[in-house]
Amino acid sequence: MKSDELFALLRRRGVVWPSAEIYGGAQGLYDYGPLGAALKRRLEETWAAWFVGLSQDYHLIEPAEILPEAVVRASGHLEHFTDPEITCDQCHTAFRADTVLEKVRPEGVDGLSPAQIAEIITARQLRCPNCGSMALSVPRSFNMMFGMEFGVTGNERAYLRPETAQGSYLSFSRMWDVGRRALPLGIAVIGKAYRNEIAPRQVLFRMRAFTQAELQIFFDPSDFTVPFDRVRDEKLPVLRVPRRAAGEESPEWVSAGDLVSTGQLPEFYVYHLVHTYRFFRDVLGYPANRIRLFEKSDTERAFYNRIQFDVEVHLESLGGFKELGAVHYRGNYDLTRHSEGSGKDLSVTPQDKTKLLPHVLELTFGVDRNVWGLADVHLGKDGERTLWRLPPYLAPVPVGVFPLMPKLHATYAMRVADELAAAGVRTQYDEAGTIGKRYARMDEAGTPYCLTVDGRTLEEGPDHDTVTLRQRDSKAQERVRVVDLVTRVRATLEPPRPARA
Amino acid sequence: MKSDELFALLRRRGVVWPSAEIYGGAQGLYDYGPLGAALKRRLEETWAAWFVGLSQDYHLIEPAEILPEAVVRASGHLEHFTDPEITCDQCHTAFRADTVLEKVRPEGVDGLSPAQIAEIITARQLRCPNCGSMALSVPRSFNMMFGMEFGVTGNERAYLRPETAQGSYLSFSRMWDVGRRALPLGIAVIGKAYRNEIAPRQVLFRMRAFTQAELQIFFDPSDFTVPFDRVRDEKLPVLRVPRRAAGEESPEWVSAGDLVSTGQLPEFYVYHLVHTYRFFRDVLGYPANRIRLFEKSDTERAFYNRIQFDVEVHLESLGGFKELGAVHYRGNYDLTRHSEGSGKDLSVTPQDKTKLLPHVLELTFGVDRNVWGLADVHLGKDGERTLWRLPPYLAPVPVGVFPLMPKLHATYAMRVADELAAAGVRTQYDEAGTIGKRYARMDEAGTPYCLTVDGRTLEEGPDHDTVTLRQRDSKAQERVRVVDLVTRVRATLEPPRPARA
Repeated sequence: MKSDELFALLRRRGVVWPSAEIYGGAQGLYDYGPLGAALKRRLEETWAAWFVGLSQDYHLIEPAEILPEAVVRASGHLEHFTDPEITCDQCHTAFRADTVLEKVRPEGVDGLSPAQIAEIITARQLRCPNCGSMALSVPRSFNMMFGMEFGVTGNERAYLRPETAQGSYLSFSRMWDVGRRALPLGIAVIGKAYRNEIAPRQVLFRMRAFTQAELQIFFDPSDFTVPFDRVRDEKLPVLRVPRRAAGEESPEWVSAGDLVSTGQLPEFYVYHLVHTYRFFRDVLGYPANRIRLFEKSDTERAFYNRIQFDVEVHLESLGGFKELGAVHYRGNYDLTRHSEGSGKDLSVTPQDKTKLLPHVLELTFGVDRNVWGLADVHLGKDGERTLWRLPPYLAPVPVGVFPLMPKLHATYAMRVADELAAAGVRTQYDEAGTIGKRYARMDEAGTPYCLTVDGRTLEEGPDHDTVTLRQRDSKAQERVRVVDLVTRVRATLEPPRPARA
Repeated sequence: MKSDELFALLRRRGVVWPSAEIYGGAQGLYDYGPLGAALKRRLEETWAAWFVGLSQDYHLIEPAEILPEAVVRASGHLEHFTDPEITCDQCHTAFRADTVLEKVRPEGVDGLSPAQIAEIITARQLRCPNCGSMALSVPRSFNMMFGMEFGVTGNERAYLRPETAQGSYLSFSRMWDVGRRALPLGIAVIGKAYRNEIAPRQVLFRMRAFTQAELQIFFDPSDFTVPFDRVRDEKLPVLRVPRRAAGEESPEWVSAGDLVSTGQLPEFYVYHLVHTYRFFRDVLGYPANRIRLFEKSDTERAFYNRIQFDVEVHLESLGGFKELGAVHYRGNYDLTRHSEGSGKDLSVTPQDKTKLLPHVLELTFGVDRNVWGLADVHLGKDGERTLWRLPPYLAPVPVGVFPLMPKLHATYAMRVADELAAAGVRTQYDEAGTIGKRYARMDEAGTPYCLTVDGRTLEEGPDHDTVTLRQRDSKAQERVRVVDLVTRVRATLEPPRPARA
């Protein structure tokens, strides 16, 4: 499906729609409806089960979204979190510089100063992409953080966090004291981040308020051992810098072991890259041939990132590979900056070790982008019907419960629904329209199981009663005893966890 | 426990701490650590299971936290969401007017204009509560919303939502189209709200960023039938306005039926008040004799609220009854304002009915305040030990898993933990220190069950193996077969749901 078509379907089904729609919308802001909110929450839980599940020393916290100015000054965001922006003096539209320079510089404007961009605009006589006039302004650096007055004096400023990671860095010291005082220590955050994007676009891909799930692993670079043998033979679809330089866009399959031995990447990095890849392929179900691990070059990645692979998935709706996650080796940049900024020495002394400032490995994941990705990849046509082939543990509603004939079977069906709910299985009761129509609604919502209470169920009576259980993907139907329902579906609803290290 | 003592304990245990601590903190902002974040999420899920569970036509959505200016202009927040503020020209401290007037006007300053407040200050010769000088400024209206530039032009402003409710009102029209097009329709939101409080205080009670859980029920006031017979005999601890006027502070027990027949409250209101009361008493476990349903008078409640009872719980740490939730009958104020503001007629025509603008019943719940309340009420001493008597479904970690002797029993214990995890039971593995110390840590974290793998477990072998299961509150220990563990604990971990209406 094309982007417009997909968004129209998601909107019609109550998955997601533009925020403040009745006021004409607010650029870059979206609201999740019932199905979308449930899918998003399941996706967050699934992410946490996998990544926080990597070690018993990895923890999920919930820090505040507002950062005092001193924090973003130290982190570098106040000075550097900018995009070059150009406005048209004729039609008053604002553009990111890369949009204006798109045709003459498809590789983007990273690394260019505003003055250099201005030169190109003049030299190439570029025009406004909107109205075609030549009244383009001189580029200016536009800080993308949302800033606000904090407190009543007018002297204090604060900012909405531009990334969740800062909350983990600010909490490191407290988490060290609260916990086992050992490295590696992982601090995960799932929550909103905010960026005043010059040009929000591609629906859930470039939003002004979006949800990140990020794990910051603090470690001793001289002693971060991982059970690498368990992943050594896994083949990864990597697109490394030299191959990119040779003009290739498709990945090549390289084993984890080779990435270390000949590829010169550290074991700890590749180990976590494998687990990230497995999450996208095995847990979220993106087809392996649509995933590529895209290495960023020195000039492309942030200067503090020593190694960076983006996890990209090929999305039909957006016409190409899109970044849905990444693995960043950030060195000790963050703790260094916050040690300096706060005046508090953030180095630690693990038992039997010397004092050090830990390094950080960041596993980052775009929640909204993956809601979109899961729709792009799993939602589609199967002959006449539209179905969303979500893994059961991601389904907003795992089980649909129908009375065949509402007048006769409603009470019984509701009782079955209540029993499932009491066992932790979320259900949706539906008695409207034909069974076929109810199946169709559930297929589109990604519900893996539908069960129907009918005359036979009532005749069979308690303990022997059966219902028709119908599977979404195969459309297979079978009679299942009510007492066996929970065990039957429950196991498929738990998000997978990595094997214990 | 006193507030300071309780906060010190919560901080030490990694439940919650001041945000940006290493920078000296940010007034009114807090970070939840591992235990706190897990408790908070469980509390949110428990709230949703209960309140969204009241009807199959109630839905949870996730709207954006940023509101365009047109929205807060229409809702009245731009004009009216203010607190009178007074600064001291000597020491430059800012105060809410009610703080300055506390001694001469303990009932607060609601309804007084800044000019009237200024008169009192002059007449009573009031001094700065901080430095004692008489250099108090003239009061000014201070808008408590956090505003920010939105977009790049500098012409657009937006605001962090001061209450989650606005997201439900903005989504009503879309939810109507997506759903069954019938009333009542419930739209719930759990999420952050932001207020630039003049004087944040009482830890999690007056924060600048806090989490609300709110259900807005849209209904036809001429046709909102509820199964009132099911609640008619429930006695509620109410403190109504006439009793308050007579100087009483303690509630009296009045049945739901009497509140309707002689108390002149509508059935639909009392029905939801009963369910709210039951949530606090039965689900969160606040003792009935510490709860009071506090009716707000005409002058105390917002002008658009026709009926308002606050749910108050007596908290030792804060020295009195504190508001932890409320039930507001808001009439059709909100949809009227947004119809006018947006130019879109938000009235609807349910099947076989005439067109109407629905009324709203709002059930509101302070998530952070209840995290604090659950600590105040359930966390305390039992002889030598400190334990947190959280209901199992609220426990951050439901099950602790210990190997009696790590060297011998660790592998087996981890396997048991993995089995529980695969069945959806969250566990924490702990092998540090004596079993007694491990119990103590879990007691303090509110973990209801601890199980220990020992030599006998290994001898018994697969399928016959047993572990020691120890209960937090009673300290009772028993041998339980590993295969029975899931069924044994699972049922107590599901949040209760109301009986189906």
